[in-house]
Amino acid sequence: MSTAAKKWYQLNGTDADVVLSTRVRLARNLSGYPFPCVMNDEQRAKVNALVRDAVENGGSVIGSRFACIDLSEKSREELVSLVERHLISPEFAGKPAGRMLMLLDDESVSLMLCEEDHLRLQVLEPGLALDKAYDMADKLDTLLSERLNFAASEKLGYLTACPTNLGTAMRASVMVHLPALERTGALRSLSSSIAKLGLTIRGMYGEGSGSRGAVYQISNQETLGVTEKSTIEKLSGIISQLIKLERDAREKLMANPAEQDRVWRALGVLRTARMISSEEFIELYSQLRLGVASGQIKGVTLDALSELSAKVQPATMLVDAGTALTPAQRDARRAEMIRAMLGE
Amino acid sequence: MSTAAKKWYQLNGTDADVVLSTRVRLARNLSGYPFPCVMNDEQRAKVNALVRDAVENGGSVIGSRFACIDLSEKSREELVSLVERHLISPEFAGKPAGRMLMLLDDESVSLMLCEEDHLRLQVLEPGLALDKAYDMADKLDTLLSERLNFAASEKLGYLTACPTNLGTAMRASVMVHLPALERTGALRSLSSSIAKLGLTIRGMYGEGSGSRGAVYQISNQETLGVTEKSTIEKLSGIISQLIKLERDAREKLMANPAEQDRVWRALGVLRTARMISSEEFIELYSQLRLGVASGQIKGVTLDALSELSAKVQPATMLVDAGTALTPAQRDARRAEMIRAMLGE
Repeated sequence: MSTAAKKWYQLNGTDADVVLSTRVRLARNLSGYPFPCVMNDEQRAKVNALVRDAVENGGSVIGSRFACIDLSEKSREELVSLVERHLISPEFAGKPAGRMLMLLDDESVSLMLCEEDHLRLQVLEPGLALDKAYDMADKLDTLLSERLNFAASEKLGYLTACPTNLGTAMRASVMVHLPALERTGALRSLSSSIAKLGLTIRGMYGEGSGSRGAVYQISNQETLGVTEKSTIEKLSGIISQLIKLERDAREKLMANPAEQDRVWRALGVLRTARMISSEEFIELYSQLRLGVASGQIKGVTLDALSELSAKVQPATMLVDAGTALTPAQRDARRAEMIRAMLGE
Repeated sequence: MSTAAKKWYQLNGTDADVVLSTRVRLARNLSGYPFPCVMNDEQRAKVNALVRDAVENGGSVIGSRFACIDLSEKSREELVSLVERHLISPEFAGKPAGRMLMLLDDESVSLMLCEEDHLRLQVLEPGLALDKAYDMADKLDTLLSERLNFAASEKLGYLTACPTNLGTAMRASVMVHLPALERTGALRSLSSSIAKLGLTIRGMYGEGSGSRGAVYQISNQETLGVTEKSTIEKLSGIISQLIKLERDAREKLMANPAEQDRVWRALGVLRTARMISSEEFIELYSQLRLGVASGQIKGVTLDALSELSAKVQPATMLVDAGTALTPAQRDARRAEMIRAMLGE
């Protein structure tokens, strides 16, 4: 694994002013093995070995770019950092014993082995890139299926541990920044429209969490009786509309001097503060990102912001620091990193 | 009047980290004329002419550096601006008809004619400069007394319209910035000690006003049965102690990272905000001044801060703008001026 490779989240993609990232996740299970929730250690080891072999020895160049990570060898901070970077689920991090993660060098593809399903394949891309992410997931799925026998039925499609994933077993999601629609109150009614279309909208850190920093995840709800392509198209259509609505709302919002003032102040505080908590950072970051994305604030790029956001998450910061930090030290270090990146 | 002369408030004096300015004011009345509250227009014009003649034709070089300003020719904004700069009292500005102000080119000396008394001579100096300000006031008093016959009695000293000024008719005051003593709560008990010593402590804009931006005016209460010299010495002694206490309190306060954070954020907001009200400016300015004076913030000088503070006062800004401004425009202009002076 090349450590020099730029990580996917250091890049900005299409429509980066509104769309932070795109994710496509496939769930697969191997025929002849019980689902992870009921398998024994021996069965788990066997499945892990089979999947790892399929990745590494599938005869594809990309297979050699994966690292195989034994989660039981990771510290608590490293595990939380993987969650913060959306590479593993909190549940997967919670019980690391015997659990394997396969991770592409740029961290754009991760495979959780024996999480809820035998295989959870996830592709992450910066910006809006549903087709690209799906194509990559599909390519890897095809590659793996040459050496693995995936459980599927003619009627139900891919079989999964949870019935809500039956069928395509695909979850496509887009992380969007909607500060203007949130601030004007328009998001509330939009959310119920989105839900009626069979999509889900929720806060930043997955199910059950509220919105923080105006970041929302929009994903497909349905997997049964639909195709992957139609799911991607439907989601694409909604996201395109949301992008337009958010841009229009921003234009109106940022014509107001008081709102301009607000985003500039966020920059001012971020550039000078000596202590910033994670919660405050998320709020100020959201305002600053709005200021930069709307063209109000120049001299700061969305690229730099995306990288900053990834770097100052609590556990990721601890891992980088390589030492234990008190909350106050962490807040001071966060402020220091922000100043180093934004200039004082 | 040379417009190139630097104004007194653009300079910092001794102990400028705590002391903003020093003021010595003498009240005088001419024998044979009723006090201003009961004089007629003719008498007022006569007194004005006598005082003006004494200033301009006293044979002193300084006399030629005074401008004689007829307040009835000034706009409302210009009058308020004079009040903001502590050159005239709000009462004097309130009834400008027939009222004259004599003003030294650097604005360090002003003479209000026929305010409460026939003559209110005021000397302003940056920083702590009680001796210097008193010497100047005394010199001018001597100069004027050569051509004017001041009302005085052997027993009561100088006679004044208000009996609280009888005697020396001198009010010496020092404007101090006490953010640390205020924040730690120590100022409350100090205030009562100061009052017991026959001194008065009050908020920024004279009697009856609360503190704003941790700026307090400390002045002598007594004028009867005391000498000018002993009054100045007593005030000097108290101020020296207050300076020491404030500096110690700052040192302790600024060792706290959360307090460091606070002053830095004030700089951040001032450097980036697009709208700042007068009230918010006073608060942020106070924090920034504390940061600069305590050495926490470098790259900004107390000189620059003093000049900034003078420039962004509401009426002074209006006069500079030369045009009417809505409150929102004024707040935007204030923010713009602050950014221009502090850098973005």
